[in-house]
Amino acid sequence: MLYLNEYDIRRAITMEDTIDAIDAAYKIYDAKQFQMPTRMQIANNENTLIVMPCMTTSAIATKLVTSFPNNKKHPTLHGSVILNSSKTGEILAILDGSFITGIRTGAIGGSAIRHLAKSNIRKIAIIGTGVQGLYQAIAACTVHPITDIFLYNRTYEKIDTLIDSFKEWIDYPVALHKTESVVEAIQDAEIIITTTTSHTPVLPNDASLLQGKLIIGIGSFQPNMREFPRELYDTTDHIFIDSHDAINESGDLKTPLDHNWISKNNIHEISTHIVHSSTITHKPDKSIVFKSTGMALFDTVVANVIYQKAIEKGVGIQLI
Amino acid sequence: MLYLNEYDIRRAITMEDTIDAIDAAYKIYDAKQFQMPTRMQIANNENTLIVMPCMTTSAIATKLVTSFPNNKKHPTLHGSVILNSSKTGEILAILDGSFITGIRTGAIGGSAIRHLAKSNIRKIAIIGTGVQGLYQAIAACTVHPITDIFLYNRTYEKIDTLIDSFKEWIDYPVALHKTESVVEAIQDAEIIITTTTSHTPVLPNDASLLQGKLIIGIGSFQPNMREFPRELYDTTDHIFIDSHDAINESGDLKTPLDHNWISKNNIHEISTHIVHSSTITHKPDKSIVFKSTGMALFDTVVANVIYQKAIEKGVGIQLI
Repeated sequence: MLYLNEYDIRRAITMEDTIDAIDAAYKIYDAKQFQMPTRMQIANNENTLIVMPCMTTSAIATKLVTSFPNNKKHPTLHGSVILNSSKTGEILAILDGSFITGIRTGAIGGSAIRHLAKSNIRKIAIIGTGVQGLYQAIAACTVHPITDIFLYNRTYEKIDTLIDSFKEWIDYPVALHKTESVVEAIQDAEIIITTTTSHTPVLPNDASLLQGKLIIGIGSFQPNMREFPRELYDTTDHIFIDSHDAINESGDLKTPLDHNWISKNNIHEISTHIVHSSTITHKPDKSIVFKSTGMALFDTVVANVIYQKAIEKGVGIQLI
Repeated sequence: MLYLNEYDIRRAITMEDTIDAIDAAYKIYDAKQFQMPTRMQIANNENTLIVMPCMTTSAIATKLVTSFPNNKKHPTLHGSVILNSSKTGEILAILDGSFITGIRTGAIGGSAIRHLAKSNIRKIAIIGTGVQGLYQAIAACTVHPITDIFLYNRTYEKIDTLIDSFKEWIDYPVALHKTESVVEAIQDAEIIITTTTSHTPVLPNDASLLQGKLIIGIGSFQPNMREFPRELYDTTDHIFIDSHDAINESGDLKTPLDHNWISKNNIHEISTHIVHSSTITHKPDKSIVFKSTGMALFDTVVANVIYQKAIEKGVGIQLI
């Protein structure tokens, strides 16, 4: 059994490998070759354990995440992924679940850029410069030679943390711009990525700032969380999702559906687009929207690729 | 995070510690101070992943077990237990789940002997001498100074495996008798423990061989599995169970209930007996029955005790 911490995983896998793994997961999703029950939650007051197993024909993995919102000295979230062999059931690896969640969510954004963005895009905006903002930036730069990233965060000073970490990952020159407003961040961007936990829209309700762009929503994973403004739904003719459950999980889909701003017919699984190579016309007056809430299938496929690469490279600690 | 394999766990905890932990778990069960959802199963044909989380006020643990019945070179079952802190959610330890299951199930039998058997018992029978037969033997010898153990197994030659392993655990002299029939095994025994996966009763349908004895059923954990014969239900006035779910899980309870051989009023949770110190009258013409199917609460409490003892003794591998 192999133990892989964050450092080991970073040695084992690149962001490009991870984006490829996400694309492979979409193929499995489209072919329905997986078992993934609804996530199980156990709560003691506000402290929660979330259990997310998934089985494919190639791997079995279970992600466990604890959420302790009142933690002061410790992170709120702790995660682990246990990978079992789909051939024998043996435990193959225990992996740092927080890092897998981070890098695979970045790669979900990267895959969306790969399949939905124009190929000549160079400028992106990231709203919310926490850990996930960082992974989105890395993923974007992995897919296209980005020249400029406009960064906005509610607490301006925290933007520097992303900038410092970004340099560890991307070694070609990218201009990282700290901005003091969302409008400043997005006005020249061709892709806008939101990674906040906001309960009210973080993007301005102004179609002119959204048209002709790819808008990627990562932050809202509960019905009461929203990042997208009302105008976005009138501006878009393509809303893509990573999994069908996103419709119920995210306020960025549930709210507009409940208000009839959009209908379910407007929403498409990106897996269908990727696997069946449908074409997208980029119109200057329309936005393309991608909304992700993630799923255990991604963790399973990514954990299995990490394990295979770690074995190849001799990375990690073998436990007996 | 501490990694504890079978060898580490054996250094960390004794069978007596484990029986004490089972008794502590019954206190938590009786006080309803735990969260334990129905176990989650995912299957790909006959290969299954079973996910069993449980949260108490002192610990959070998730046991994962894979069952691959067609394995030839590998064991059918593989298990792991992930222990998280109930204070912060941090991952405290990863433990060998197969060994925890083995030793805690032995300790469930040991606890039943501690609380249900006469104090002067010296002779026991074990029907089914696989791994669980071994742990039941160890647990019995931990609770009382057993002098004779009568061993029966469908494949006679396999009894030696138990005998060899037993000596690693118990260092006082115990006469281990290999028997060629169940009747021979049980006729002089004061306690009979069954640990088979049989679908038909393994004990003889003869009240005279069961009366005045404590009968402990460990093997049947599915509705189509049975170890107890019809006569046993007429012979007993005390049927104890380890958890309420046993009624639906085990054919040793479901079958007699379905046939009205017993009613639910005949069945009592052993936790009530232990916590509220009810008295039992041992009558020479009556059997006392204990039926266990286990539950994740046991794994959680035992894993937490193992972790505490391992930290005290400096056992295990610290992973960063």
